[in-house]
Amino acid sequence: MTLAQYLEKNAEIVDRAIDRYFGDAFGDLYRASTHLLLAGGKRLRPVIVLLAADAVRKGSSDDLMPAALALELTHNFTLIHDDIMDGDAMRRGVPTVHTVWDEPTAILAGDVLYAKAFEFLCMAEADDRAKIRTVKMLAKACAELCEGQSMDMSFANRTDVTEAEYLEMVQKKTGVLYGASAAIGGTLSGANPVQVDALYQWGVNSGIAFQIQDDLIDLLASTDVSGKDRASDIREGKQTLIAIRARKKGIDLAPYRREITDAEVDDLVARLHRAGVIDEVRAVALERADIAKRALSVLPDSEEKQRLMEITDFFISRGC
Amino acid sequence: MTLAQYLEKNAEIVDRAIDRYFGDAFGDLYRASTHLLLAGGKRLRPVIVLLAADAVRKGSSDDLMPAALALELTHNFTLIHDDIMDGDAMRRGVPTVHTVWDEPTAILAGDVLYAKAFEFLCMAEADDRAKIRTVKMLAKACAELCEGQSMDMSFANRTDVTEAEYLEMVQKKTGVLYGASAAIGGTLSGANPVQVDALYQWGVNSGIAFQIQDDLIDLLASTDVSGKDRASDIREGKQTLIAIRARKKGIDLAPYRREITDAEVDDLVARLHRAGVIDEVRAVALERADIAKRALSVLPDSEEKQRLMEITDFFISRGC
Repeated sequence: MTLAQYLEKNAEIVDRAIDRYFGDAFGDLYRASTHLLLAGGKRLRPVIVLLAADAVRKGSSDDLMPAALALELTHNFTLIHDDIMDGDAMRRGVPTVHTVWDEPTAILAGDVLYAKAFEFLCMAEADDRAKIRTVKMLAKACAELCEGQSMDMSFANRTDVTEAEYLEMVQKKTGVLYGASAAIGGTLSGANPVQVDALYQWGVNSGIAFQIQDDLIDLLASTDVSGKDRASDIREGKQTLIAIRARKKGIDLAPYRREITDAEVDDLVARLHRAGVIDEVRAVALERADIAKRALSVLPDSEEKQRLMEITDFFISRGC
Repeated sequence: MTLAQYLEKNAEIVDRAIDRYFGDAFGDLYRASTHLLLAGGKRLRPVIVLLAADAVRKGSSDDLMPAALALELTHNFTLIHDDIMDGDAMRRGVPTVHTVWDEPTAILAGDVLYAKAFEFLCMAEADDRAKIRTVKMLAKACAELCEGQSMDMSFANRTDVTEAEYLEMVQKKTGVLYGASAAIGGTLSGANPVQVDALYQWGVNSGIAFQIQDDLIDLLASTDVSGKDRASDIREGKQTLIAIRARKKGIDLAPYRREITDAEVDDLVARLHRAGVIDEVRAVALERADIAKRALSVLPDSEEKQRLMEITDFFISRGC
């Protein structure tokens, strides 16, 4: 089975669990809460919880579906709140929660999922001490997600973001929830601290690689592949690793913060290639992917460990 | 020591713990998160956690300060988000978070405290199984707080709210967090299920009594006592128990949804008195207070149990 087929099969299993728990949401607040949740998604975080558990102890994922859903609920709560903050009108092909309802309802809809995430985490069949550790992990991840979103918003008014700041933002906004997913799955299946840390490092570094690849896709891929206007990050003046490395080479992207033609994008891409920016950024993503995969060496070989490594490779080979 | 002195002394202990953990908040996001928290407050919820613990097992509160703070953090997260939704500009004598910063920062500031609440709950020194039960209790309370706020907002456009709906809203918006405070304190100190339920019932019913008394204060007390414009609920057309009972007696408060003079308020109050509305509403508060205090009969006699009962009496004797 290819990774794509494997992920799709497992996303369907997660979808069925979501439908069982949330399919008959009653009342405006719960309909708003489950609006994006029921609109689909790749369900990568819950699948990673289950894979990590089985990579530590085969078959242990059977009791962990509620904990796996906790990570999807957390992800969805952040989507609802981020969409309000970013003023985004569409997500997963449907109008965002604050667009269909209103901002107050969207704030509450996110807050409800936030509570449900912790409730579901505690519903997993696992050792109590392990569960407490996972509550702490999820809480820490949630605080860092907020820090990441806060940094990301603060970057909008700056042109001097450093590479360290960018990497911290990406780690918090994207990395830590993948890290928490893997570490929580492992912890609930009885992983030792070394294994838990390895799973966390796998997730964080895979997440960082994912985000850097996303930045590359935005610039290099066609609209068909990225689903966004080409070079939208550059039009919006986003402080990506590409922008930061370009600045270091004396290529200022600030003048492109406007409507730009396809020919201008092609021109800019060629310039960035010649300056070595694209290769450098790709190398950073590859390096993070490499760190992620090597972290897993402390786990015994298994199909699930293999799938986790394939997910990392998938993260950095998507799109372009 | 009077209850007022006792509460003040314990609020200071809580204040010191808050200052220890949050006094040197770094960065805009954490300054926004702790803005209201450091502005003071009665700290009733953490004090109740500690009192409930000691009412179950004397001295057990010594290890529970982080769990007590978890309830204050939860309360503060809801204040920050509610202020956004309600568009309120002042709270505890200081400008609200979204007024000092902006709405996106206030959403995140609340979300950070939400995470910290669960983190702090897990930091208490207590049995792991008990801690898991309290995580579930806090998560359930948070979801219900959202439901209560959602109901409260939906009432704004209605004039036909029933007494059952009002009581459900008040229970969720005010009662459950007092209930969770007492039940969590008890659970962490080793209370049996009957005791935990009794503490929860004490808190929920005390909270409902508190809110009904608040509605009475708004109508009957001078601005000096209530800190709000007199009869602001009636000016705003709020669906309180007073409005609902008045409607039952054929007194429609809807025409008062405007600027009204003091003389008009006096007139209305006299009418409500004559119709028996004020006495009836006061009786409902008294009944809830009575249910609350009687629930505690399953606990052994102690100073702390006595203080909890005094808190209930204080809730319904404030202001008018």
